[in-house]
Amino acid sequence: MLQAGARMDIRIPSTTHLTDAQRIDWLRLIRSDNVGPRTFRSLINHFGTRRGGAARPGRICGEDDARAELAASQRLGVRLLAPDEAGYPPRLAVLDDAPPLLGVRGALELLMRPVIAIVGSRNASGAGLKFAGTLARDLGDAGFVIASGLARGIDQAAHRASIESGTVAVLAGGHDRIYPPEHEDLLATIIGSGGAAISEMPIGHAPRARDFPRRNRLISGAALGVVVVEAALRSGSLITARIAAEQGREVFAVPGSPLDPRAAGTNDLIKQGATLITCAADVIDAVEPIMGRPIELREPDDDPLAHEPDASDRARITGLLGPTPILLDDLIRMAETSPAMVRTVLLELELAGRLERHGGGLVSLI
Amino acid sequence: MLQAGARMDIRIPSTTHLTDAQRIDWLRLIRSDNVGPRTFRSLINHFGTRRGGAARPGRICGEDDARAELAASQRLGVRLLAPDEAGYPPRLAVLDDAPPLLGVRGALELLMRPVIAIVGSRNASGAGLKFAGTLARDLGDAGFVIASGLARGIDQAAHRASIESGTVAVLAGGHDRIYPPEHEDLLATIIGSGGAAISEMPIGHAPRARDFPRRNRLISGAALGVVVVEAALRSGSLITARIAAEQGREVFAVPGSPLDPRAAGTNDLIKQGATLITCAADVIDAVEPIMGRPIELREPDDDPLAHEPDASDRARITGLLGPTPILLDDLIRMAETSPAMVRTVLLELELAGRLERHGGGLVSLI
Repeated sequence: MLQAGARMDIRIPSTTHLTDAQRIDWLRLIRSDNVGPRTFRSLINHFGTRRGGAARPGRICGEDDARAELAASQRLGVRLLAPDEAGYPPRLAVLDDAPPLLGVRGALELLMRPVIAIVGSRNASGAGLKFAGTLARDLGDAGFVIASGLARGIDQAAHRASIESGTVAVLAGGHDRIYPPEHEDLLATIIGSGGAAISEMPIGHAPRARDFPRRNRLISGAALGVVVVEAALRSGSLITARIAAEQGREVFAVPGSPLDPRAAGTNDLIKQGATLITCAADVIDAVEPIMGRPIELREPDDDPLAHEPDASDRARITGLLGPTPILLDDLIRMAETSPAMVRTVLLELELAGRLERHGGGLVSLI
Repeated sequence: MLQAGARMDIRIPSTTHLTDAQRIDWLRLIRSDNVGPRTFRSLINHFGTRRGGAARPGRICGEDDARAELAASQRLGVRLLAPDEAGYPPRLAVLDDAPPLLGVRGALELLMRPVIAIVGSRNASGAGLKFAGTLARDLGDAGFVIASGLARGIDQAAHRASIESGTVAVLAGGHDRIYPPEHEDLLATIIGSGGAAISEMPIGHAPRARDFPRRNRLISGAALGVVVVEAALRSGSLITARIAAEQGREVFAVPGSPLDPRAAGTNDLIKQGATLITCAADVIDAVEPIMGRPIELREPDDDPLAHEPDASDRARITGLLGPTPILLDDLIRMAETSPAMVRTVLLELELAGRLERHGGGLVSLI
């Protein structure tokens, strides 16, 4: 990852460690209202410092609050890492919407190893649970770290079977707000056995429904590929699979009978191009060729100052938006202007609290 | 099919009906020892008449025997049709190894409609049987004729569910030697309800084990595509799928749990490129684009007289053969001579009773 930093367009210090002051500054910015990972990055690119905001920003996180979060994190053994620091999953670090500070608890070195995500239904069948366990164990034996979402069902089976070989729980809430609560013991076992947990949310943040799709991008983002074991149609695991495909990750799906509704989602994924797998070897065969490949870096943004919008640009782009989420790519195409221009207007809207970013590159007006 | 005949290289009369005398002649040739469909075609091409044989032919079918078979067929309501005659399945007619005379019983017009084959395990699961029935019914409702092999399990379920809409039993033995015998009633129901049965074997021929793979090429050959519903590894349905792929047919497979051995074969087919299907619409979506496409004709052979082998050609090509079956394509490549030359030598070997043709383009020395 160190060599990757040279080409990254977030202006990260040339050292691989933030100073305490920098970490506090970054934390204040990312914890301010209307600032998500993409906005954080845009602000850093656009204004060059954490102080900025041509529009009307919402509440800015105070320095005391940031210091308090840092202290609370440290008490829980959670480190807040920037994308270039050791312990930050390298494949996650290069994503557009990588958390500027990721809360990492447990064995940092685990996160630097190749990761396969295993996800699936909370109300899985006995066969699905058994398969998830066997797959996680076999992939673990082959040297892969297993990432999942600490949920009931498939997630739990995958974590349990990979506790010895290495497993990572990716949390939707803060590190002290485990969902479901009865999995606090499982998480303690994971951490106690050399595993890890990651979250982009502050200590004390109770996960809301919309935090789960957001969290799912971290599960797939940290991994070489995502295996969906059982999934009904329109289930959360399919969101993870879609995000994984958008991130360029391998998507694997375990087939099942057409008469089994818990296989409807995975069969559908295979129809859409996901790779059918029935054993760990299928996964390993598919990811081995990409393991040695250098991690693809995101394209540096153009100089944002060359794309300063005027009133007519703002009106045109805002006019294309409404309460129905629209794909950023579609918006850029319809706006018939540069992507950087569109992103700048979206940034202004976001800082003004008028824009909502959904998963999968979707945005809408609030 | 009529327009196709103009380009076909079997010298079929320009009328679309054989005369009685021609039908007897053709029957004598195809029922002679060491003469299969490909040899029949080669002989017609090579010698231009049914009398030929530079090598030592085996027993030649006598005219009386041929007349007796024709009469016995007629008593059973079986017509012996040449590839260009009405009632001969058009997609089957254009294959290299199309039976020169196909015994057809029942509704000829059914065989001119688009056909989907459904095959699978004899010892199918309840879920597999149910799925096969639903699929056959839905495809039948959509206007497709269902072809299968009259076996126990999936075949039987597919036939039963398509009796009203139209179903074709493809037999491995003669029309009076039904396998399994307890399906004689099912066949009677099929014929009595406007369905059909086809066989390339003479009346009285009891099916042997090796007749089933040979028969399977007719199941796939008559169809736009083949659906494999349940299949263990190394099962007969997978042979049908392989032949179907070699024939350029669509291969569809129904997925199942990796923990279900009856899905191992179908999951494997999907890994190898077969299309995963979970409902009739998946099949229809895939075959609709090819239904309107003209049937691809086989390439006419080169002039065989331009490739008359000499002693060294014979020795070289025969030397490449042994008791282990080898792909004809590989043989042609290794022989480093023209395909027509290789085929001529194989024809001579076959007429001499020294060559065995297996399914899937495999040949071996006897």
